[in-house]
Amino acid sequence: MVKAMRHPSSAPDGPSLDSIRAIVKTALSEDIGPGDITTSSIIPDAMSAEGIITAEEEILLAGVRVAEEVFRTLDPRVEFEAFAGDGDPLKSGDKIIRVRGRARALLTGERVALNFLQRLSGVAALSRRYAEAVKGLPVRIVDTRKTTPGLRGLEKYAVRVGGCWNHRYGLFDGVLIKENHIVLTPGVAEAISLAKGNIPHTLKVEVEVRNLEEVREAIRGGADIIMLDNMDIPAMRDAVRMIRGHKEREILIEASGGMSLDRIREVAATGVNLISVGALTHSASWLNISMDLYETD
Amino acid sequence: MVKAMRHPSSAPDGPSLDSIRAIVKTALSEDIGPGDITTSSIIPDAMSAEGIITAEEEILLAGVRVAEEVFRTLDPRVEFEAFAGDGDPLKSGDKIIRVRGRARALLTGERVALNFLQRLSGVAALSRRYAEAVKGLPVRIVDTRKTTPGLRGLEKYAVRVGGCWNHRYGLFDGVLIKENHIVLTPGVAEAISLAKGNIPHTLKVEVEVRNLEEVREAIRGGADIIMLDNMDIPAMRDAVRMIRGHKEREILIEASGGMSLDRIREVAATGVNLISVGALTHSASWLNISMDLYETD
Amino acid sequence: MVKAMRHPSSAPDGPSLDSIRAIVKTALSEDIGPGDITTSSIIPDAMSAEGIITAEEEILLAGVRVAEEVFRTLDPRVEFEAFAGDGDPLKSGDKIIRVRGRARALLTGERVALNFLQRLSGVAALSRRYAEAVKGLPVRIVDTRKTTPGLRGLEKYAVRVGGCWNHRYGLFDGVLIKENHIVLTPGVAEAISLAKGNIPHTLKVEVEVRNLEEVREAIRGGADIIMLDNMDIPAMRDAVRMIRGHKEREILIEASGGMSLDRIREVAATGVNLISVGALTHSASWLNISMDLYETD
Amino acid sequence: MVKAMRHPSSAPDGPSLDSIRAIVKTALSEDIGPGDITTSSIIPDAMSAEGIITAEEEILLAGVRVAEEVFRTLDPRVEFEAFAGDGDPLKSGDKIIRVRGRARALLTGERVALNFLQRLSGVAALSRRYAEAVKGLPVRIVDTRKTTPGLRGLEKYAVRVGGCWNHRYGLFDGVLIKENHIVLTPGVAEAISLAKGNIPHTLKVEVEVRNLEEVREAIRGGADIIMLDNMDIPAMRDAVRMIRGHKEREILIEASGGMSLDRIREVAATGVNLISVGALTHSASWLNISMDLYETD
Amino acid sequence: MVKAMRHPSSAPDGPSLDSIRAIVKTALSEDIGPGDITTSSIIPDAMSAEGIITAEEEILLAGVRVAEEVFRTLDPRVEFEAFAGDGDPLKSGDKIIRVRGRARALLTGERVALNFLQRLSGVAALSRRYAEAVKGLPVRIVDTRKTTPGLRGLEKYAVRVGGCWNHRYGLFDGVLIKENHIVLTPGVAEAISLAKGNIPHTLKVEVEVRNLEEVREAIRGGADIIMLDNMDIPAMRDAVRMIRGHKEREILIEASGGMSLDRIREVAATGVNLISVGALTHSASWLNISMDLYETD
Amino acid sequence: MVKAMRHPSSAPDGPSLDSIRAIVKTALSEDIGPGDITTSSIIPDAMSAEGIITAEEEILLAGVRVAEEVFRTLDPRVEFEAFAGDGDPLKSGDKIIRVRGRARALLTGERVALNFLQRLSGVAALSRRYAEAVKGLPVRIVDTRKTTPGLRGLEKYAVRVGGCWNHRYGLFDGVLIKENHIVLTPGVAEAISLAKGNIPHTLKVEVEVRNLEEVREAIRGGADIIMLDNMDIPAMRDAVRMIRGHKEREILIEASGGMSLDRIREVAATGVNLISVGALTHSASWLNISMDLYETD
Repeated sequence: MVKAMRHPSSAPDGPSLDSIRAIVKTALSEDIGPGDITTSSIIPDAMSAEGIITAEEEILLAGVRVAEEVFRTLDPRVEFEAFAGDGDPLKSGDKIIRVRGRARALLTGERVALNFLQRLSGVAALSRRYAEAVKGLPVRIVDTRKTTPGLRGLEKYAVRVGGCWNHRYGLFDGVLIKENHIVLTPGVAEAISLAKGNIPHTLKVEVEVRNLEEVREAIRGGADIIMLDNMDIPAMRDAVRMIRGHKEREILIEASGGMSLDRIREVAATGVNLISVGALTHSASWLNISMDLYETD
Repeated sequence: MVKAMRHPSSAPDGPSLDSIRAIVKTALSEDIGPGDITTSSIIPDAMSAEGIITAEEEILLAGVRVAEEVFRTLDPRVEFEAFAGDGDPLKSGDKIIRVRGRARALLTGERVALNFLQRLSGVAALSRRYAEAVKGLPVRIVDTRKTTPGLRGLEKYAVRVGGCWNHRYGLFDGVLIKENHIVLTPGVAEAISLAKGNIPHTLKVEVEVRNLEEVREAIRGGADIIMLDNMDIPAMRDAVRMIRGHKEREILIEASGGMSLDRIREVAATGVNLISVGALTHSASWLNISMDLYETD
Repeated sequence: MVKAMRHPSSAPDGPSLDSIRAIVKTALSEDIGPGDITTSSIIPDAMSAEGIITAEEEILLAGVRVAEEVFRTLDPRVEFEAFAGDGDPLKSGDKIIRVRGRARALLTGERVALNFLQRLSGVAALSRRYAEAVKGLPVRIVDTRKTTPGLRGLEKYAVRVGGCWNHRYGLFDGVLIKENHIVLTPGVAEAISLAKGNIPHTLKVEVEVRNLEEVREAIRGGADIIMLDNMDIPAMRDAVRMIRGHKEREILIEASGGMSLDRIREVAATGVNLISVGALTHSASWLNISMDLYETD
Repeated sequence: MVKAMRHPSSAPDGPSLDSIRAIVKTALSEDIGPGDITTSSIIPDAMSAEGIITAEEEILLAGVRVAEEVFRTLDPRVEFEAFAGDGDPLKSGDKIIRVRGRARALLTGERVALNFLQRLSGVAALSRRYAEAVKGLPVRIVDTRKTTPGLRGLEKYAVRVGGCWNHRYGLFDGVLIKENHIVLTPGVAEAISLAKGNIPHTLKVEVEVRNLEEVREAIRGGADIIMLDNMDIPAMRDAVRMIRGHKEREILIEASGGMSLDRIREVAATGVNLISVGALTHSASWLNISMDLYETD
Repeated sequence: MVKAMRHPSSAPDGPSLDSIRAIVKTALSEDIGPGDITTSSIIPDAMSAEGIITAEEEILLAGVRVAEEVFRTLDPRVEFEAFAGDGDPLKSGDKIIRVRGRARALLTGERVALNFLQRLSGVAALSRRYAEAVKGLPVRIVDTRKTTPGLRGLEKYAVRVGGCWNHRYGLFDGVLIKENHIVLTPGVAEAISLAKGNIPHTLKVEVEVRNLEEVREAIRGGADIIMLDNMDIPAMRDAVRMIRGHKEREILIEASGGMSLDRIREVAATGVNLISVGALTHSASWLNISMDLYETD
Repeated sequence: MVKAMRHPSSAPDGPSLDSIRAIVKTALSEDIGPGDITTSSIIPDAMSAEGIITAEEEILLAGVRVAEEVFRTLDPRVEFEAFAGDGDPLKSGDKIIRVRGRARALLTGERVALNFLQRLSGVAALSRRYAEAVKGLPVRIVDTRKTTPGLRGLEKYAVRVGGCWNHRYGLFDGVLIKENHIVLTPGVAEAISLAKGNIPHTLKVEVEVRNLEEVREAIRGGADIIMLDNMDIPAMRDAVRMIRGHKEREILIEASGGMSLDRIREVAATGVNLISVGALTHSASWLNISMDLYETD
């Protein structure tokens, strides 16, 4: 069975500092280019300031560590204080972060820091809504590879912040035989067999099926995980019954395709172990977060 | 006046090949890591295949050149044929692209190619809706710096595909004195003056204002562009009247803040020259596009 | 069960062209720096030549594609012809490759091309010896993470060329709870449980044990794979018996630690499914391969 | 009008620390390669030393921050003390910098640090001479894109240190329609119109003209800035008169082409707003600066 | 003896294609940033054009291969034809290069291509003047490490194009014990001895001396090359006599410091083997080269 | 003569911090990818631990500084204490390093740190055996370019730790005319002459010869160093006698080819100055070093 227990930390483990630095550097570089001409032409180099970042609507916070890195890159001596942590639900008006340092660094970093916070909090908040929709049921909501190019690590982290789970990270850490694979092989069972013969033994084999016939083949081929793709609820129920009837080994069942919020609990009730939801990352909208600056003495 | 004429090419100029290659490489690298283990374990190296990419709903197409680069990176000899170009409106079921080459390359590149197409077409489609909402009015809808970190060039391109215009690219190619700058200076006029004294002469100076008092200061300080931030319609009308009453030089007027689709035409009717809309990039959702594979002889 | 069937290609799938190019570029750059001063000072730019790469002892070939990339990087128009492919056993004196092109490119690339061929063929040959030592037994010899820094992809490929299998690639695509983890947790079962609660469902959980007591805990905790670390043969036999006695689910058994060639068949005969051998990569020595140049007209 | 007031800092804003680090890393890497063999073979690792950098002729200082980064890269704990700042005029014999730290780091970094100081001070000094030649006149001397490949940010900074101004940084932050553009379009006015219809509204449009006929077209087309290219003084006077006669909007006038020091004041007196001088960067020679080392206890 | 014979190629060996690509990419990237907005807004994507690059004064050509790479990077299908090669002396008005391809690529690449050609031809021309000043004498004019940061490979190549020779490339391929080293060691002889004991045997040891006393020590210590630093002509003559009087082994003599063109032949006549001239790279000015565009059918 | 005196530091100068960081980053990146899922799923973020690295057999230590960088990259605040330094001989059971810090960082970095230590200590230990085999004889054992791609700097450093010397680093800092060069030139003497005419004067010219005839040519051509390639002992003796008989200048003699440990002293006794041994780097095996973790309060 896939378990749901979390390790004792308050927030899930985030991307490595190195990978945060890389994406922050990319983001600052595309925004600043050869220089922030507004700021450098009107703000003296020596001026200090304080910035307060505030939630402008109800949010689920994600990205504090990334925002910190944005300001720290621009001013290594910045003082950064967070009033809330990733995973905290906040109301409109709640202060999130106080940052003090070179006024130029705060002005230059503001937009990039907010872009990360707004995007990641949006993913976390949507994930939280999905997680709550299946509360109490023995099922995991998992994400997909439908992430923004270049942001996969951060978006998958925000999914965990929101209380959902990650599917495989990419093509290298999980085997998923999809329709487009099967059409190029003699059949489902043969594809599973080939995979098992070649992949590292630490990986399970998942296969995507569209009907009961393929479910049967997948069981026969030895699939560890069967993904029910775009099936309606009655078909899912039949598939779950067929798979659970196979007693020789534990097979995980994943439902996928068009998993909207209003439908998710009904899907979960069919007895599947996992529901993968592309919307967690591809349909999350940005949340409203702003920053105000103050001069310091 | 800001003009609206476009140059004679059918599609707007896209990002350079070099920058497309860089983001495609990043995207493939995060998805593939050390290898696509599913594909390499079940699909023979020598197998060829054909993929058809199809619109699964009504879309405005953007990103064809990026999708091509995805497959070309994985198989330099791939045959890539597009049935439609960026900016074309398509119906559900319309074929977009046929790509033929190594089966492994097609399987490995599918998700990344679709991620780009779905995201960029989403931005283009939303931009198109805004552009059409102000059709016939002498106004430009422009984007903002609220873009996904790392994707600014592509997202700003998709905005142009959708028929809107770009604001400055980043902090280096336009001067915009915002509230957070002004709070650290003696005042609006002084800030404008400092900017004009230091920036290259090829750039205009834009200043953000929140009320008529600040509008007056901005005019006096010599602003080239005045951004009316979060004003209601009557206040915008007053501001436009005051600015147009200043005959000594042409001043562009930009409206900004909470520019939803249902409100945009009324805003445009106030006589502003530009309306900046963060939603073009931060609230666009992915469109549904899929790929089917076929074995070739 | 872990299967042993291979997909129909003659050679296993190698690293991506992109990753080959990256390591080749690194290797050429450290060798050439600002220029091959010997070659450029005595060989005319326009001169063509032919190089023949030959086995100087009995070898198992690996690295042909990498050697090609070395020469192609230095001379994009080089003609490269391989008389043998990765996985082919060769005798001393057998010709491996003929390469024709700019004389300077051949001279400059020779050492780097040979360094790759000699190292990778060495890993493949040693892997082959291990593979043959357990021929006919239902066991996989797998590699470890004891690879040369920077060369993991190529060395793991050479292991496959030699007829062995890969363990996980790195820390991201397999879960292996080792002694050093367990010492920091309340116990084996708790560690397994935490892992299952957090990792993607596509991954199995492997745990390292040192005695029968820990084997029992690992079974109870729900391990998918149990690694018997540094046990002697009788202890392994007991462990296998205990694990196989657990009928509720299939558990893979891996033997590890000090797996020398003369002992490997006896270990395999205990009934373990996998034997991990660090020596495949850390104790392989270079094979003798050379290159001779000829002037062409 | 283009203003000349500077913001209150003593020195103009320099390139970002990140961009300084990048060019310093490149410069050190090309000089040190795999190691400074002289220094490492004769100087003990633990030895400390002090270096004094001194002006060997009359200079205008630029590059102190870059020199600091050179030594700090090689020895993070170096003590770096500057006796003068960028923009300070110094006499032969004046001490500029004292740096204390690992003797090896000082010896290895000496040449690279001096190369930056000598080159940048050269650009600053020449810029100062141009700036002084037009002292008191309402004109800006501006640089061009004729900068050393890879050093644009630093060289443009040195121009500001010398008291001149920057033209656009590159092709992305300013519109300049040159002769080579016009020859491929229907004409000056059409080219201006196309540009205005496509570029962000924050940018002005500049056009290069060679005679009064083209000046007239540029005014008619709506140019914001008109560059008089390679005109003699009488032609410039006529052009200025014609442009100033156009009262409807302010048009900036830039003179360009063969702007030698002995001619520049006469050009300025014609009433142009800007004079662009390629020589600031492409004809500056290095100034003489040296470093002496002393052993410390 | 240092020889002067050159290998049979017409032009000296240039930097590797890889290193040319790297510096060209840097140069284009700093100039183009996110896009050439002038060109893309007024020139249609499909338009073709032809550019002719012409000498505007008497030049010694260098950099053709670099200019080609600039255009090829922007348009891989460009037709590039050179009417002259590196090392060719040209008169004002001589055509150098014809390049045909996408009009946008030609416009965008023009300035960067010219920047390389103008700078490198400047270095080559000045080197040629030095080479001719010592024509017929058994001496080599060599360059120094006083090169523009980031351009060392290209500038040292231009020195060879001009008929001079290269000193060591950097700190890694030659041993030069300078005054600043000696002050930190017990003395000249000891320093030489330490160097010989540690460096690879393929390298000679050069030592910088300032007077006859140090010359004597350098001979005694076993120096392979003695650099006479900032000596006047009579002192050089004495030093040459003293060194040539030492018959036990061949010692090369290099003169250095303040080597202006009008003095160089007299220095050469003292019998030194080498004269190092920083001016070759740090005092070369750009030559005048331009490009004209034409529309093609 | 090549000297053997070493400078006063206890350990030879290692690679620069920058180059260590680069290879450490590569190694960590290939091992960790998007994350160490075992560690992050079972070890709390806030837990601290202590690791002790211990020799498991007799070793000659090398790589301490690299191991430190591994842990410091993962946890900048780690406490790192070394009980032994590079070059120290250790017995089985000797503690090498104590490292305290975030438990996750220690677990994640363990394998990479050990991989460097085991590999580099292996090279150092083998080098030491060669160095001791010729103890007391006036000869240097030197390495070759047969190093692991990407690790040349570290492996050549380990050679020095073991008491041997480095040959040239790569193709750029030494001239070695090999058989494959000579076959493309008119002959040995001509090749030497061409080289001397083109290379920087700071470099010696070495030539590879296979028989006495070629030795004679090499002397005549002016070789500074003659490499006797694959000669038997009597032939080497003849060659040494012939070369020493040439009194006009000092010529170094290097023996090369098949230099096994049991033969090396006899070779040294022939009077050669240098013996190059590829085995130092290509045949060194990893030494056994391990790490144990402990929880800290």
